[in-house]
Amino acid sequence: MISQEDQSFLVQHLSFWEHLTPSQQTLLFEHTHLVHFSAGQTLHSGDKDCIGIILIKNGSLRTYMLSEKGKDITLYRLFGGDLCTLSASCILNHITFDVHIDAEEDTEALLIHTSIFSQLIKENIYVENFSNKTTVERFSDVMWAMEQMLFMSFDERLALFLLDESAKCGCPTLKFTHEQIAKYIGSAREVVSRMLKYFEQEGLVKLSRGGVTITDKAALKQRFFTH
Amino acid sequence: MISQEDQSFLVQHLSFWEHLTPSQQTLLFEHTHLVHFSAGQTLHSGDKDCIGIILIKNGSLRTYMLSEKGKDITLYRLFGGDLCTLSASCILNHITFDVHIDAEEDTEALLIHTSIFSQLIKENIYVENFSNKTTVERFSDVMWAMEQMLFMSFDERLALFLLDESAKCGCPTLKFTHEQIAKYIGSAREVVSRMLKYFEQEGLVKLSRGGVTITDKAALKQRFFTH
Repeated sequence: MISQEDQSFLVQHLSFWEHLTPSQQTLLFEHTHLVHFSAGQTLHSGDKDCIGIILIKNGSLRTYMLSEKGKDITLYRLFGGDLCTLSASCILNHITFDVHIDAEEDTEALLIHTSIFSQLIKENIYVENFSNKTTVERFSDVMWAMEQMLFMSFDERLALFLLDESAKCGCPTLKFTHEQIAKYIGSAREVVSRMLKYFEQEGLVKLSRGGVTITDKAALKQRFFTH
Repeated sequence: MISQEDQSFLVQHLSFWEHLTPSQQTLLFEHTHLVHFSAGQTLHSGDKDCIGIILIKNGSLRTYMLSEKGKDITLYRLFGGDLCTLSASCILNHITFDVHIDAEEDTEALLIHTSIFSQLIKENIYVENFSNKTTVERFSDVMWAMEQMLFMSFDERLALFLLDESAKCGCPTLKFTHEQIAKYIGSAREVVSRMLKYFEQEGLVKLSRGGVTITDKAALKQRFFTH
């Protein structure tokens, strides 16, 4: 059984809670566990896994598509308080695609097991609606990623990535390898390295071993995002 | 008021029907109208329109994204019996993106007006779930399109488009201009023309004014889709 604290964290984030019967509430607590994912761990891979609904306590998960040839496209990332439903895609009707989900950093989460969630979806329309509603939110995330991917030029995407990451950590230096950046923005390492080098020559960033420092944030913003 | 026949067509396609009260059922009939869209007509454009939920009787609708620079990416198409929810995106919470919807051919449809649908969503959890569920289906369609777009090479996409269209009409000759094909597969006319010419030289298709005829379907399939 999860702790009192985790129980209230769970209840807070499940909008259908009040529509469950007392016995459904007990069942749900009994089939929810505290889980840990290590940085880099894959927790969902296409149609091979179906562990359940994940509510992140802290850390972050990255959802991505993978082509046969190994091309990797980030769809969205989830953080503390976010719910991941695609990790239970096997029980969601109308989801006919497969994604991959990795922990990007050490992540602590509450896992509601597939079996109980599947049962509750059948028994309770509020649970079914909740899972559809949460999945529709992810649809919006994916459309955003798709717009980036299809409509923005590569230098814009790279600049946006650097600015976003810097805003997220509140720091100018990003500890990413060129390989990782390429993965996140759906490109190749060589292409990222070349463009970063160009940005460096332009005085926008400074490159170092395993990291990129934004040296002129205002210029980086102005160059790409003032129309 | 719509005809008896249209009423039963509507009821058949709304899985929440039996969960409505008699007065909600009457209201829904009263606020549903038979509408006609001409081929080429835009019926939804970003956040500017919000006409309601559309149930297609016959014809087809194309949903697409449009970049500032005019690039056009087809997300999915809907046909007779399909439901279009994004034409009422203003009343769907969690939908934060804008799409465009055109009639591809003359289309007859039943339109459930936004006002009544919005009221029913608030009053009835089954209606809310229905709209979320239908939107999740479209999510799957979009993911399919995204995979095509990002993972398939251009010649594969063009070959798949020709084979799909030919299967749809059950005919070898497709009445599309190169401009239209470019639009549907998210490319430029010049690129399409060049590749079609190459396909023709390879004996896969024959080009004519305003049309493409598949001359060797087996070869077209085998070349691109047997791994």
